[in-house]
Amino acid sequence: MPVNLSAPNPAELFPVAGVRIGVAEAGVRKANRKDLTVVLLDEGASVSGVFTQNRFCAAPVQVCREHLAAGRGIRAMVINTGNANAGTGAEGLQRARSTCAALAAHLKIAPEQVLPFSTGVIMEQLPSERIEAGLPAAIADAREHNWARAAEGIMTTDTVPKAFGAQVLIGGVKVSITGISKGAGMIRPNMATMLGYMATDARVSQSVMQQLARELAEGSFNRVTVDGDTSTNDSFVVIASNKAAHPVIDSLDSADGQRLKAAMLDVARQLAQAIVRDGEGATKFITVRVQGGKTAEECRLVAYAIAHSPLVKTAFYASDPNLGRILAAVGYAGIADLDQGKIDLYLDDVHVAVQGGRNPAYREEDGQRVMKQTEITVRVVMGRGTAEDTVWTCDFSHDYVSINADYRS
Amino acid sequence: MPVNLSAPNPAELFPVAGVRIGVAEAGVRKANRKDLTVVLLDEGASVSGVFTQNRFCAAPVQVCREHLAAGRGIRAMVINTGNANAGTGAEGLQRARSTCAALAAHLKIAPEQVLPFSTGVIMEQLPSERIEAGLPAAIADAREHNWARAAEGIMTTDTVPKAFGAQVLIGGVKVSITGISKGAGMIRPNMATMLGYMATDARVSQSVMQQLARELAEGSFNRVTVDGDTSTNDSFVVIASNKAAHPVIDSLDSADGQRLKAAMLDVARQLAQAIVRDGEGATKFITVRVQGGKTAEECRLVAYAIAHSPLVKTAFYASDPNLGRILAAVGYAGIADLDQGKIDLYLDDVHVAVQGGRNPAYREEDGQRVMKQTEITVRVVMGRGTAEDTVWTCDFSHDYVSINADYRS
Repeated sequence: MPVNLSAPNPAELFPVAGVRIGVAEAGVRKANRKDLTVVLLDEGASVSGVFTQNRFCAAPVQVCREHLAAGRGIRAMVINTGNANAGTGAEGLQRARSTCAALAAHLKIAPEQVLPFSTGVIMEQLPSERIEAGLPAAIADAREHNWARAAEGIMTTDTVPKAFGAQVLIGGVKVSITGISKGAGMIRPNMATMLGYMATDARVSQSVMQQLARELAEGSFNRVTVDGDTSTNDSFVVIASNKAAHPVIDSLDSADGQRLKAAMLDVARQLAQAIVRDGEGATKFITVRVQGGKTAEECRLVAYAIAHSPLVKTAFYASDPNLGRILAAVGYAGIADLDQGKIDLYLDDVHVAVQGGRNPAYREEDGQRVMKQTEITVRVVMGRGTAEDTVWTCDFSHDYVSINADYRS
Repeated sequence: MPVNLSAPNPAELFPVAGVRIGVAEAGVRKANRKDLTVVLLDEGASVSGVFTQNRFCAAPVQVCREHLAAGRGIRAMVINTGNANAGTGAEGLQRARSTCAALAAHLKIAPEQVLPFSTGVIMEQLPSERIEAGLPAAIADAREHNWARAAEGIMTTDTVPKAFGAQVLIGGVKVSITGISKGAGMIRPNMATMLGYMATDARVSQSVMQQLARELAEGSFNRVTVDGDTSTNDSFVVIASNKAAHPVIDSLDSADGQRLKAAMLDVARQLAQAIVRDGEGATKFITVRVQGGKTAEECRLVAYAIAHSPLVKTAFYASDPNLGRILAAVGYAGIADLDQGKIDLYLDDVHVAVQGGRNPAYREEDGQRVMKQTEITVRVVMGRGTAEDTVWTCDFSHDYVSINADYRS
């Protein structure tokens, strides 16, 4: 059961001019499952992406990096579920390239204009023949109104499709922003998440696209974690189809650039948080906010130590205000000169610990009340500076074990 | 159910001359539970300890450091379960000191000659009055043959007491080595574990005791993990009662020093591995060996990434050879210049991955066979050097979640 997250209403997702999406069943791993998605872009779109920092990165991630670097203009993307094409060596690379070439032939474009993405089981060869056989059906299905279908087409252990949109005025022109994401386990994005895509019809110069993708990922996908396992396939792609009639945005610091980025960041955050809300076995959505640090980096270190602690996560699952476990995680986060006597801990509005010890005014029933909620904010104040950072995570339940013990069976 | 670990046979634990142990029921948290242990040392023992690197360290850990630094000669230790005296501020420190003073008064020694230890729930005040009231019974119980009782007296979520011993000839004299440990969750020792004690009657100069404690911890407790949570209370104490008749050991590099250290390391490793075998919810004992690294540090980084991955640990629980998860963990371990094309993976004798990809000769049923065992060795060969390191861990089961969701109830 996802935490306060329902399937998107297709009517509320904005089509983005110049971006058509098609979905098909290719039988990559299981029959009768939408497991193949193509995204077709009109000529002239600005595209950039950020990818996993896992050194064991998947073949499609390597090919994406190459094709983006080729700079011939991206015209299509091909996404399969059921197989990650990771840990597959030279043959895996060849199969990822073959899929791009097949789609390029259909569209009469160059293979370097295609980006491939895979998600699913690791260390099994990609059945690229089946994907290639499924391409005509996916291409025939392509239309601008298909975002909700695409969100469904890229799901693996997700229980609900994830798609969000927004509209914002840029230079007096209303532009649309729509994004989809997937992922529920092996989630600790480091640069991007296990497949996130956003498109806008806004006009954005290619020269600022990489900065835009990076800053959007930093403020959204790079702040969520389910289980601390950074995937081999994390990819986040940002598309500007450049169809809107406003003057082109060539700096993110301009008024239009800031407005667009803020609207896109809002959508990116919803996409990233949706992954946590649908985290494997999740029953609670937890915001970990760390304040009063010397740097944002050390705040993030502490936030992730809390967000990754199995002891903290099982306590949230049990609604057990066993909050000393949070202090223990703060202590081992890796800040060498941390003074425990300056640390305060809050659970929503409840002041749990003062200067490293239990708050004399803290009552167990107050902690218990907050722990029973489905949305909880943990706030740690370190008393050593003014920096802060925030990470979003979920709890750790019996179902997480069940899902991951049974994933392949 | 612990993994291939049974309760020690009291008859097989060697008493150590000059070290007497007493156990009592003080009612710290629950009635009718052996929760108080005292260790009484004859004058002239060499003692040293290593303690948690968690910056949020418990009050007794702070007092232990002070009392060891005072250098007046340690004569007694007092250990309680049911309460960790961590996250308890200035009052927690005062209560730890008060317990030492009470034991010192009974024994007519100085409070600085007493080391205090606590384990249990965090962020609740230590009921030191109950501990002090229980001291006479514990002192009256003290004898040299009580090691098995002590192993029971320091248990919390442990399901079996942990005690091991050895005898070794030093300078032609047979000396005894006996140790006990406890811990099943919040186990990722960084310097030492949640309470480990070893004693020998060997004659060891105080000048080398700190080095001995550090090296023993490095080769044993600092290489195990259950859940990645470094405790606030980890403590490992090494005692040499100096009763044996051989010439004093004043260098660990001497032949006698090496022989004693090897025998003690063997016992320390059994104690540390026993904690993993009795890890919360554990059904399998897993050795993670990483070879072919540039440095032992980077091998350890990779070994811990594998040993902490919830995805890897749940796959072991399910006996599911979903081994790509291990490669993913290798990839995010933090080695920036890792070449995935050089990595080989073995599961016991089964060669799973070659040069970063699936071994063509690997058959799923071979992986499955090993995964079903209760003792499994994962071996990663990185192909970038000659260094190696080993970490011991357990799998991650439904019971881990149950135990930690219900710990305080």
